[in-house]
Amino acid sequence: MQRYFTDQPIQLQEVFSVTGDTFHHLVRVMRAKENEQAEFVAANHQVFLGKIKSIDEKSAEILPVKQLEHAVEMPIEVTIACGLSKGEKSEKIVQKGTEMGARHFIFLPTEFSVVKWPAAKIARKIDRLQKIAVGAAEQSHRAYIPTISYCGSLRELMQWPGKFKIVAYEESAKQGEHTQLHHQIAQMQANDEVLALFGPEGGLSTQEIKKLTDAAFISVGLGPRILRAETAPLYFLTAISVFTEMR
Amino acid sequence: MQRYFTDQPIQLQEVFSVTGDTFHHLVRVMRAKENEQAEFVAANHQVFLGKIKSIDEKSAEILPVKQLEHAVEMPIEVTIACGLSKGEKSEKIVQKGTEMGARHFIFLPTEFSVVKWPAAKIARKIDRLQKIAVGAAEQSHRAYIPTISYCGSLRELMQWPGKFKIVAYEESAKQGEHTQLHHQIAQMQANDEVLALFGPEGGLSTQEIKKLTDAAFISVGLGPRILRAETAPLYFLTAISVFTEMR
Repeated sequence: MQRYFTDQPIQLQEVFSVTGDTFHHLVRVMRAKENEQAEFVAANHQVFLGKIKSIDEKSAEILPVKQLEHAVEMPIEVTIACGLSKGEKSEKIVQKGTEMGARHFIFLPTEFSVVKWPAAKIARKIDRLQKIAVGAAEQSHRAYIPTISYCGSLRELMQWPGKFKIVAYEESAKQGEHTQLHHQIAQMQANDEVLALFGPEGGLSTQEIKKLTDAAFISVGLGPRILRAETAPLYFLTAISVFTEMR
Repeated sequence: MQRYFTDQPIQLQEVFSVTGDTFHHLVRVMRAKENEQAEFVAANHQVFLGKIKSIDEKSAEILPVKQLEHAVEMPIEVTIACGLSKGEKSEKIVQKGTEMGARHFIFLPTEFSVVKWPAAKIARKIDRLQKIAVGAAEQSHRAYIPTISYCGSLRELMQWPGKFKIVAYEESAKQGEHTQLHHQIAQMQANDEVLALFGPEGGLSTQEIKKLTDAAFISVGLGPRILRAETAPLYFLTAISVFTEMR
């Protein structure tokens, strides 16, 4: 069933309206009719089954008939930080990472980044990635839309205040380091916040890794195969899901 | 370091030649010079560090100087079977699934497949996917190139002879089934063969699921979020990696 995010408080049996993009998708794209149903996420992330009561030119009236209690969010709040990569990699990371359960994405320039986001274009890039996050969150039936942000430097990222700070390091994998990721996840508890940093195509420099580990980042390998910049975050998110949601 | 697959037996200190695509990539694309090194995978999947002894117009002589022992292959031999999907999904599944460690890919028409592979085009499609597999296997430093094949029907797929037959079923996830995947993986031992079937965009039909479970396929959920057709195999492969390689 189609799911839509709203910025409204929703209460059972209290009719609310949808307009704008949601109305357009529901009525024009999906061609929904009166009495058909869809899922609606309230501003507080509760999810409701809603029945369409009436359809006007630019809005539809929705009656919330049931609250859905099925937990879809990961117990750990994961922030994925990525060095700026070429091409459409950031779009792919946001789309797939949203499906995989990430709560926040941060993009930042690192030493081996071959692209830059010019200051004048940052807002537009964030806006585009945010739209991709909304679509992926609806499609994967999330209760949260992940946030997207830009961070000017590694130094700034290192100020991140949460508990677990992790950096994925290819050399760890090559050296056969296979236990640190599991060890870190085993220490995480519900509602813990985790930041995981991934390099761009060329990875992170040894100097960057040194700065990060000096700043209490834990360097982890992601299995014995070399993963692309846009694949590594998916491995990490799945590992968290597997260890915290699958047993 | 760049890695290349060869179809040759390779032995330490015994010079061999590379030609064709490998020569082209090594010498023309990477502009490698004499005395530089790359990794070469022998026909028997052993991996060697090789030094370039000499470069001619169409071939290069390589001296294997060291055998690399670092295990990169998953202990479980995973076959990913996918219902035919639209667009470039099959390419993405092969590229990312190869990075994630799959050993075989099978594509087949299922009830909700909206595309078909016409008989006249199957060989060309397989050939294209096989090239993508080679590139991804080299990039991710695999010791095996995954095989690609086409299967005419679900009935035919059900004859697959290996030990573990799994089907990913979205409804299992929606119903909160979170333990079966881990339960199955926990029973797997080194060198076991596993077939995992994934539906196309619309998933598999309830009839297909019934036929499969009647034929001893185990239906598993892949976490609480709804994954796209091309994302689900990556979740499955990572789960196998995490449980068998990361501890």
